[in-house]
Amino acid sequence: MNIPQSSFPRVVIIGGGFGGIALAKKLSKKEMQVILLDKHNYHNFQPLLYQVSTGGLEPDSIAYPIRKVLQGYPNFFFRLAKVIGIDTKKRWVKTNIGEIKFDYLIVATGSETNFFGNENIETKGMAMKSIPQSLNLRSLILENFEQALLTDDLHERDALMSFVIVGGGPTGVELAGALAEIKKGILPKDYPDLDTRRAQINLVQSGDRILPAMSEVASRKAEQFLEKLGVNVWKDLRVLDYDGNMVTTNTDTVFESATLVWAAGVSAVSIKGLDAKELLGRGNRLKVNDFHQVDGFENIFAIGDVAQMETKAFPNGHPMMAQPAIQQGRNLGDNLVRLVEGKPMKPFVYKDKGSMATIGRNKAVVDLPRFRFQGVFAWFVWMFVHLYFLIGFRNRVVVFINWVYNYIRFDREARLIIRPYKKQNQGLKNQLKKGS
Amino acid sequence: MNIPQSSFPRVVIIGGGFGGIALAKKLSKKEMQVILLDKHNYHNFQPLLYQVSTGGLEPDSIAYPIRKVLQGYPNFFFRLAKVIGIDTKKRWVKTNIGEIKFDYLIVATGSETNFFGNENIETKGMAMKSIPQSLNLRSLILENFEQALLTDDLHERDALMSFVIVGGGPTGVELAGALAEIKKGILPKDYPDLDTRRAQINLVQSGDRILPAMSEVASRKAEQFLEKLGVNVWKDLRVLDYDGNMVTTNTDTVFESATLVWAAGVSAVSIKGLDAKELLGRGNRLKVNDFHQVDGFENIFAIGDVAQMETKAFPNGHPMMAQPAIQQGRNLGDNLVRLVEGKPMKPFVYKDKGSMATIGRNKAVVDLPRFRFQGVFAWFVWMFVHLYFLIGFRNRVVVFINWVYNYIRFDREARLIIRPYKKQNQGLKNQLKKGS
Repeated sequence: MNIPQSSFPRVVIIGGGFGGIALAKKLSKKEMQVILLDKHNYHNFQPLLYQVSTGGLEPDSIAYPIRKVLQGYPNFFFRLAKVIGIDTKKRWVKTNIGEIKFDYLIVATGSETNFFGNENIETKGMAMKSIPQSLNLRSLILENFEQALLTDDLHERDALMSFVIVGGGPTGVELAGALAEIKKGILPKDYPDLDTRRAQINLVQSGDRILPAMSEVASRKAEQFLEKLGVNVWKDLRVLDYDGNMVTTNTDTVFESATLVWAAGVSAVSIKGLDAKELLGRGNRLKVNDFHQVDGFENIFAIGDVAQMETKAFPNGHPMMAQPAIQQGRNLGDNLVRLVEGKPMKPFVYKDKGSMATIGRNKAVVDLPRFRFQGVFAWFVWMFVHLYFLIGFRNRVVVFINWVYNYIRFDREARLIIRPYKKQNQGLKNQLKKGS
Repeated sequence: MNIPQSSFPRVVIIGGGFGGIALAKKLSKKEMQVILLDKHNYHNFQPLLYQVSTGGLEPDSIAYPIRKVLQGYPNFFFRLAKVIGIDTKKRWVKTNIGEIKFDYLIVATGSETNFFGNENIETKGMAMKSIPQSLNLRSLILENFEQALLTDDLHERDALMSFVIVGGGPTGVELAGALAEIKKGILPKDYPDLDTRRAQINLVQSGDRILPAMSEVASRKAEQFLEKLGVNVWKDLRVLDYDGNMVTTNTDTVFESATLVWAAGVSAVSIKGLDAKELLGRGNRLKVNDFHQVDGFENIFAIGDVAQMETKAFPNGHPMMAQPAIQQGRNLGDNLVRLVEGKPMKPFVYKDKGSMATIGRNKAVVDLPRFRFQGVFAWFVWMFVHLYFLIGFRNRVVVFINWVYNYIRFDREARLIIRPYKKQNQGLKNQLKKGS
């Protein structure tokens, strides 16, 4: 890897997501050699991926070059690498570009879509956890509408214009809302020769309410907002299978749809050598103590989605969202300095800053620790918070301008099929999905 | 294709570039049924592709959905289709989505990179005529720098950091200038552990001056600007072959470079059924008369890069640029109306509005019909003109903001490897290049 020897202790961070970046920033001016490994050369802002899929934002606006985040710090090194495994005893990380020794290792690999072993859904459905996946979905949606123009089979046409979104968490809710707005504001203008009113947007939730991690009032209100927008919300319904057209469920309900988006589960991205059964909790998360140390290791840590720190408030670990990852990254940064200096580490205490989801224009739900509110003001809060946490001044300005434009014009101009998904990549589908 | 019968004459336009869009706009309110076919669902602004390749602009900012250009016109139809051939006698266009009859056919298919039969250069070099190609180049450049970090072989490292740009027209000059600015302003900060001063940017021109279509003073000044930026300008040198690393020429000069960009020639995109030898001029262009009519046809027209209208000032046809295409599209629009109304058509008269190229920050050359100037003012004129011709208000604002940001910060933030080119697509290289 051509990383020079240093007299400072070497910290290797795997993953440049919210947690990894927050940690690297904390350590950048300290007397440590920090090596960040990621399979992408950018950090991406996952909460806005659904806006890329629906043409509201350009993909580059929610990505930020990792090298730029930490420009000018002489002890910081980035390497574009895929991690293959870890040797915890010899303290080596094995990657596709060689091996690297660590003094401290931080696993911040995040999570990936969990299809629960259903290969049909994995190959024929769409996921939305990365920028290439979001762009694939954008292409597919647009290609399906172009295709709908060409068929005389009403069944087929309806299926091409319809969506099944599986999973009623923030991703599913926000995507469903965005699609409903497209159906209303854009499709009739773009496709005057299609009866786009027949487009169906189905949001399928296995539990008895959407946004189950939020308050009941938020769930109820979000459902009202969605229904107002014309989304069919299905609760207590489980999607079982998908053949590329027909979606079957645990009841008699079936859907015909050319687009199934799977947002019904994630699991932590585990690494060979650190994936022994006893180390893993729910959804493959690495069990860590209050100091983020992986069970049984003093110098191996995990933060963010991949870490399961069991606390009273969160017996199954913190929510897999940006906030816990950022806070954990920062806390671990301070702790590593303490550790090197021989001082006792401070246990992590999560400050719940609340959670939120947007459903559409002027419609959002916000749960703060002390307040809950929904509607226009919540929508402004949602926008402000997302702009605030986006990395990079340019990104903020460009996203803001797009939002203002989209708001005023009821439009989303990035409805571009830059890389066709269906026709060109059908054969490569798995490869591209896995490679993303 | 599911396009309704109409009592209006049917005009089929192949290609949504500058010419096709200008023509469609002219006809949108007339009593004609206008069908625009394109293999992409967007118009792209080719003059700025080099800025996508170099991370200065987001790809979506220079693309615009074709459906949106002509929203609200009831007689206008867009179909995403690849044209397979034309039956000029039966007046059919054959496409991958079916056949369509025409009363008037307009070929506006533009041009594609011409490798002059050199398969090595075609498969191992890069072209920059479409957005996916530009994104591939962006990925490759970034991947090569990441790779350069990993090797101890100085030769290899230098090759990974070096560029050979073949062709001294505007595309080659603008790309070389942009790369030189990246070398100076971004690489040292992004790759402090590489000696990026060793990166070589070579611009190879077969003729005796760069920008041969412009005035001699523009050529001379552009060359000075490039050399000031550290670009090696080679004149009277022809690139003969490329094995992915070594570039050989017609002299003893060789280059070692992992990136060869071929901008040394284009040829018109011809269509089966309209590609008889006697119809074609230089570079496969369709010979047309003063009314854009293809030789021997009354109802088949060609405009833009694909058309060769021989005039006194341009004995080999007009320059293959945006301006002639736009003007031809507009003139043909008026003429089609006249033709339908039984009035005589007006011959096309090209108004040369000048040409320009930018070399970098504060550096451009402009040839207007009456004035020629170079430097800072030329650079502002270049920016203003490009913003003016970009389609879409949002695109203009986003491009403008990116330019202001890049200017103030000496930065280009879209240095993102969204779709890896080298590792992932090596095997698919040809397929992706051809599919783009």
